[in-house]
Amino acid sequence: MCRLAAAVGVDNAAEVVRRMLLAQQHGGQEGAGIATEHDGKLYIHKGLGLVDEVFSRVDLNRELPGRSAIGHLRYATAGGTHVNNVQPLDGVTRDGPMVLAHNGNASNYEELRQQLFKSGCVLRTDSDTELILSLLGHVAGATLPERLVQMYQQAQGAITLLTLVPGMVCVSQDPFRWRPAAYAEYQDGILVASESRAFKIFGIKRWHQVPPGCIIAITANGQVREIRYATAPERRCVFEKVYFAMPDSEIYGDHVGQQRRQMGTALGRRISHLNLDGIIPVPDSANVAAEAISKESGVPLIHGLVRSKYAGRTFITPTQEARELGVRMKLSVDESVVKSQRVGVVDDSIVRGTTMRQIAQLLFEAGAVEVHLLVSSPPVIHPCHWGIDTPHRQQLLAARVPLDRLAEELGVTSVTYLTETELMTAVGDPESKSHCNYCFTGCKPVAAHRLPNE
Amino acid sequence: MCRLAAAVGVDNAAEVVRRMLLAQQHGGQEGAGIATEHDGKLYIHKGLGLVDEVFSRVDLNRELPGRSAIGHLRYATAGGTHVNNVQPLDGVTRDGPMVLAHNGNASNYEELRQQLFKSGCVLRTDSDTELILSLLGHVAGATLPERLVQMYQQAQGAITLLTLVPGMVCVSQDPFRWRPAAYAEYQDGILVASESRAFKIFGIKRWHQVPPGCIIAITANGQVREIRYATAPERRCVFEKVYFAMPDSEIYGDHVGQQRRQMGTALGRRISHLNLDGIIPVPDSANVAAEAISKESGVPLIHGLVRSKYAGRTFITPTQEARELGVRMKLSVDESVVKSQRVGVVDDSIVRGTTMRQIAQLLFEAGAVEVHLLVSSPPVIHPCHWGIDTPHRQQLLAARVPLDRLAEELGVTSVTYLTETELMTAVGDPESKSHCNYCFTGCKPVAAHRLPNE
Amino acid sequence: MCRLAAAVGVDNAAEVVRRMLLAQQHGGQEGAGIATEHDGKLYIHKGLGLVDEVFSRVDLNRELPGRSAIGHLRYATAGGTHVNNVQPLDGVTRDGPMVLAHNGNASNYEELRQQLFKSGCVLRTDSDTELILSLLGHVAGATLPERLVQMYQQAQGAITLLTLVPGMVCVSQDPFRWRPAAYAEYQDGILVASESRAFKIFGIKRWHQVPPGCIIAITANGQVREIRYATAPERRCVFEKVYFAMPDSEIYGDHVGQQRRQMGTALGRRISHLNLDGIIPVPDSANVAAEAISKESGVPLIHGLVRSKYAGRTFITPTQEARELGVRMKLSVDESVVKSQRVGVVDDSIVRGTTMRQIAQLLFEAGAVEVHLLVSSPPVIHPCHWGIDTPHRQQLLAARVPLDRLAEELGVTSVTYLTETELMTAVGDPESKSHCNYCFTGCKPVAAHRLPNE
Amino acid sequence: MCRLAAAVGVDNAAEVVRRMLLAQQHGGQEGAGIATEHDGKLYIHKGLGLVDEVFSRVDLNRELPGRSAIGHLRYATAGGTHVNNVQPLDGVTRDGPMVLAHNGNASNYEELRQQLFKSGCVLRTDSDTELILSLLGHVAGATLPERLVQMYQQAQGAITLLTLVPGMVCVSQDPFRWRPAAYAEYQDGILVASESRAFKIFGIKRWHQVPPGCIIAITANGQVREIRYATAPERRCVFEKVYFAMPDSEIYGDHVGQQRRQMGTALGRRISHLNLDGIIPVPDSANVAAEAISKESGVPLIHGLVRSKYAGRTFITPTQEARELGVRMKLSVDESVVKSQRVGVVDDSIVRGTTMRQIAQLLFEAGAVEVHLLVSSPPVIHPCHWGIDTPHRQQLLAARVPLDRLAEELGVTSVTYLTETELMTAVGDPESKSHCNYCFTGCKPVAAHRLPNE
Repeated sequence: MCRLAAAVGVDNAAEVVRRMLLAQQHGGQEGAGIATEHDGKLYIHKGLGLVDEVFSRVDLNRELPGRSAIGHLRYATAGGTHVNNVQPLDGVTRDGPMVLAHNGNASNYEELRQQLFKSGCVLRTDSDTELILSLLGHVAGATLPERLVQMYQQAQGAITLLTLVPGMVCVSQDPFRWRPAAYAEYQDGILVASESRAFKIFGIKRWHQVPPGCIIAITANGQVREIRYATAPERRCVFEKVYFAMPDSEIYGDHVGQQRRQMGTALGRRISHLNLDGIIPVPDSANVAAEAISKESGVPLIHGLVRSKYAGRTFITPTQEARELGVRMKLSVDESVVKSQRVGVVDDSIVRGTTMRQIAQLLFEAGAVEVHLLVSSPPVIHPCHWGIDTPHRQQLLAARVPLDRLAEELGVTSVTYLTETELMTAVGDPESKSHCNYCFTGCKPVAAHRLPNE
Repeated sequence: MCRLAAAVGVDNAAEVVRRMLLAQQHGGQEGAGIATEHDGKLYIHKGLGLVDEVFSRVDLNRELPGRSAIGHLRYATAGGTHVNNVQPLDGVTRDGPMVLAHNGNASNYEELRQQLFKSGCVLRTDSDTELILSLLGHVAGATLPERLVQMYQQAQGAITLLTLVPGMVCVSQDPFRWRPAAYAEYQDGILVASESRAFKIFGIKRWHQVPPGCIIAITANGQVREIRYATAPERRCVFEKVYFAMPDSEIYGDHVGQQRRQMGTALGRRISHLNLDGIIPVPDSANVAAEAISKESGVPLIHGLVRSKYAGRTFITPTQEARELGVRMKLSVDESVVKSQRVGVVDDSIVRGTTMRQIAQLLFEAGAVEVHLLVSSPPVIHPCHWGIDTPHRQQLLAARVPLDRLAEELGVTSVTYLTETELMTAVGDPESKSHCNYCFTGCKPVAAHRLPNE
Repeated sequence: MCRLAAAVGVDNAAEVVRRMLLAQQHGGQEGAGIATEHDGKLYIHKGLGLVDEVFSRVDLNRELPGRSAIGHLRYATAGGTHVNNVQPLDGVTRDGPMVLAHNGNASNYEELRQQLFKSGCVLRTDSDTELILSLLGHVAGATLPERLVQMYQQAQGAITLLTLVPGMVCVSQDPFRWRPAAYAEYQDGILVASESRAFKIFGIKRWHQVPPGCIIAITANGQVREIRYATAPERRCVFEKVYFAMPDSEIYGDHVGQQRRQMGTALGRRISHLNLDGIIPVPDSANVAAEAISKESGVPLIHGLVRSKYAGRTFITPTQEARELGVRMKLSVDESVVKSQRVGVVDDSIVRGTTMRQIAQLLFEAGAVEVHLLVSSPPVIHPCHWGIDTPHRQQLLAARVPLDRLAEELGVTSVTYLTETELMTAVGDPESKSHCNYCFTGCKPVAAHRLPNE
Repeated sequence: MCRLAAAVGVDNAAEVVRRMLLAQQHGGQEGAGIATEHDGKLYIHKGLGLVDEVFSRVDLNRELPGRSAIGHLRYATAGGTHVNNVQPLDGVTRDGPMVLAHNGNASNYEELRQQLFKSGCVLRTDSDTELILSLLGHVAGATLPERLVQMYQQAQGAITLLTLVPGMVCVSQDPFRWRPAAYAEYQDGILVASESRAFKIFGIKRWHQVPPGCIIAITANGQVREIRYATAPERRCVFEKVYFAMPDSEIYGDHVGQQRRQMGTALGRRISHLNLDGIIPVPDSANVAAEAISKESGVPLIHGLVRSKYAGRTFITPTQEARELGVRMKLSVDESVVKSQRVGVVDDSIVRGTTMRQIAQLLFEAGAVEVHLLVSSPPVIHPCHWGIDTPHRQQLLAARVPLDRLAEELGVTSVTYLTETELMTAVGDPESKSHCNYCFTGCKPVAAHRLPNE
């Protein structure tokens, strides 16, 4: 889970990319970076933290000059927070300097690693992005797009990529296009982003999706050429739509808020037997689904859970008590609308279930008589191998607890999930032809792939 | 506009206060500080920025030891951001060391200042809090409460105060109690806070308001004594309820969310003629009022404005273009629910009107056909002299533009305000006997007071 | 022990003062600060650490504008390292804003403090500088010089002072002038400094001492007026010449290096019986005296102790082992010139004696057969009450150990001190009429003064 | 120009290495780093700045655990100050993780780089150290020493190397041993350092040089094995002895101070015709040579140039005026010993000559009647290709100005250099059999080497 942005043939390209990263900050808070080209030289600045933390003391014009820039946001993953893993990643190959930024996950990571070691390669990090960079150094090809095609034949999995070399930026998709990427005209050049909200801040209203199996090569002055190197049944990530992307964005050409509301509407049809007094969204990610449930069911929406913008990052002792306090600092109940009520609390998805257990407890403490959990997606039963940072199977609540014992486990009165069919209908793909829903179904999106042990 | 917290006779008092400040961080983001007492010595740490920024590298047990602590959050005011103005403020008087934290505004500031200069006093800051500290050094009195009574006879205006001396913490209210403060039992000691949400994070369910004209003296081991030194017609700040406090808090014994919903309900009764397709709150401050308007009117609530948690602090060039971009970075429209709709956008209050003008523009850009502004409070026509940081009259939109030209000025289809009567009824004080509503009415809450030129 | 600098009526006054502070950094490493005046407004920036640490990120032109500036360096004192004690100190009196910087020590500190408390004063620090500022707020007088005269009648002790108010800078001396201060013409204005080396960096060759009991009032455009308010037998600090000032400086009109060489010459006359092979200075403070001893005695000077410029500040465990390592990190012996030699090691003064004990051990470890200690000043037997940070009597080696047991205590072969007569002759005052040598003799420089318990 | 340190089989190895780096800080101020091994895992921390700046906030026990550690100091080079170039450098090869630290310069850099590119290698920096790491990934060999032997057959030039892999640390020398390295027993393990002063801080008195063409393999528990892989005529760097190493150190088994004094003595024999009144060292690097000149010639040594410990790093405008001021801030003349004198100013070497020109000017300004420059080494006429950061030929004063015009160029009365014969005799190698003196003579130390254009 990461976010990408680029500006090519545009004044103050680094500043433009900084703003596009800010607009996509929800998609990665662990690290941020921007690289630019100016007069054939590459410049890069990156660091751990939010965009503002990384760039607040940087004079962009001086340290990141040029009219071509690519940027990357890194999501906080379970393991290694380390500045070495922050992107873009730069290196020099026989063909000259190169910078790249990657969203996704190479599923044949271990195989590629051993192959590179055999050829004498020394790896500096344990990221799959460095593997991709090393492959690009090894493959032959007169142009960057040619080398990218070679690379895509060896590296499998979700690989949405920005590459910057003197004179050219490429944005490219693997044949299945798990992760979103779009580009748009701006001034005399081109912008690239993962989510359309990064275009909207500049007043841009039209953009193009990067097709699966395609490389979009953009020259320094903004000329665009599309190279299609593969055709495959597309696999849009359904979890991007359920949870990860922002509701005011379009990804893969689909409107996130609209499809998320359709999920809510489907769920809203099935809750009349619960006799709810109010629908409470877990803010802010479930706001849109809850609004649709309320509208469809006629049960009023109430903002009974209040989110603190300033929850505090640091709790020194990572004890159970501290974690519980953590939720209380972030979410607080407005007891005046909850007391003596039968409430439906809406969440977009249940992964580990730890937060929901505490939310239920807070609602009962505040006087709710019944707390019904409404989940606007199906049970998550498999970890993702294509770039979403879901935990191992044994940590997935719905994978380790039978459905009929979930309510008890979470401390709620009842649990209602969206069905797989409802979900796939909501995203306009009732027969699951163009989406990956492995996390909900366990159906491998690509038959031939061998996946690591979960 | 500030927030206070204290813990007396409590283990790890500084950490407890830090959490209470975090829970009230919405009420002051410019600076934060905590002072403690341990074995008769006072300790203090404070700085500019959020609680997390100020305390993230501080070992509280070592640098702020003791079982008594007071804390303060400073709101970003127009003028002087300076670390000298961050509280608590410490000093030594003939009676020993003292630390204090102040919420409010001394309305006879200039008079007190001249009086202190005449007595030879050298002032180190231009804050009214230092005047209060200096007065406490000059007045006679065997005990801290006695000296506080003397001080309250000279300093006028909104003065809600925490004072810490070896062996005792006092929380005290001026005779009119403009600003809220409450205390609660916790462990073997006492907690003090401006808003009840700071108690709720510890699971506390009962608290007591500090009455007007009262000093609550708390000994180091948590013994409480109430000293009433004045009686006056109370003046609760109605703007705290309209905008400043969080909806899950109780202040002055009144539930903020409940009263804010009553404001929404009153407004919801009067909008049927607008034929709205949807009610859009300006997130998050108008969520609760919008929910009530929707419920009362039957017009569905839609989350058509999406707030970015990470808006970015730094825009180097403070140009008009940068400010406009600032709003676009913070608020984005979900056009899928706005296109071709007649929407009512709800805000809690209109002060300068600059943000609302841009929101209206964003909504029309996204395809709304009508944008009706619904304000859940009356027009703001006077600056506050009792601690709310509203600007000079000439910057108040409703003070400089006639009501019938406001819609045009803001670029909206129509504007509907709450009436004064509706507001005062919503806060349970239809005859304005116990509230200050000077900002909406211009009625001086205290006849004798001479106010500075606005 | 502090250092002062000022620039009045000079372009980029803050930058000029920053350089003068840098040139005097040896005289204070704990904190640094500069205050300026521009268009009647005062600006100030200060902090803990070296000049470079405090000012490296400061844009002086923007944050400290104006053509008048005063600066201060604070010496690391035993107790309270706290940013509150860093100078210049600013405040507002009935006569307007004022900034001051102080070198010295008010010897009637406690008396002044109680007097100010009685008048209702609240003190924010425990520094005597704040007392002086408070006195200046209380006294009457139409002009700043008049108020300074009043202040000097109440505050006793060593008070060399820079005061800055809109339109004027004053540099003033107490009647006895314990601490040095001089001024010089520069461009169209005036510079002030404690040591002449701060003038030399600008190529200045002539300067004037501020006489005892005098106020030099300098207008914003560099006009100078001398106000003499008292006459008294002058008391130049002999320890400034022995140790504190740099050898390339002039203070009180005396050349430090020249007088320090005269101390060495006197000592060099009396060491022939020791049959030394080499004279080793403790670098860098004893270089000059050692050079004179060598020249007078004919024993060659050898750089047998090598000082590391980068000794490392941080040793986490403050154990005996760590302190010993501390000396080994700072000073290293060149055994090639020490082995099998009878060496004389020269230090300017012995206060606690802890470092010398370890130096002796290092020299014997490196193979020296005899280590004779030569001290170019008499035994220090009394703490200073006028601004030099010497420790309590019980920590002064020569005050607690009889002279005939000193060599044993320090682990050296013999100890030779300069006599009081030799010292006073070296500074050109054989009858001790114009110097304070209390630390060496215990003779009170001012009969009437009551000193605190040592 | 760098410095190395290691501790193997030693408690708190990282802290031990930190102290050894501090003791060698003169040899590299641009960056510092330490890597350790604990239970088969490698840990690393490094950064730009001094040891204290890089490690002051690091909890070594927690962040750099283990009993094996290697460390590196990087010298400020003309070009790229970048954190990427700070060492140690870590990577993973087919044989597992590895960390290395390098002192020297690979003279066939460009050749190696092209060879690695051809094999598909992607390089992340432009340092030769990364080339060495990449070579170590490509070569075959069952053990680390075997792979090091392979590497030394491909990489030419000065390569003194520390390598750390799980279970082993190697310190190795290229066949010519340009740079120094020694090891010593300590506790139950082994310490490694560039200069012996890093051993002396622990009281260690005996150490062993790493021979040319040798690898010293040290197991985790401190077992030492010497592998000799080549024999060649040794090439000790004479410039290390002239300038770079500290006088209290031994390098290559030679005592630096002793040999530097022999240089001074040789020069002292030839100056009687100058009729000097005093010998002034440029502190501190020329102290030892000046002392020997004085002793040999009978002309007294005077500390007429005073060095400020705190010279200030930042001068915003890099103008000529600022650079001149820079010297004035760092070096100040004690005019009392210079006035009307004929002085000999001693410097260890003249590279660009810019500082000396200003020193001469300062001395004449202070009243010296004659200023004779005495240089305790011959003219520097060639840049170094083996790790000393001397500038391009056209910037070397003695390479662009004829010797008979040097005095005029530098503004001094006369210039006396040491001769090549005197220098080589002083270092005990009159026939230049075991030293490299290319910088002074231009004689290539290795016939076959092709050097880049100077």
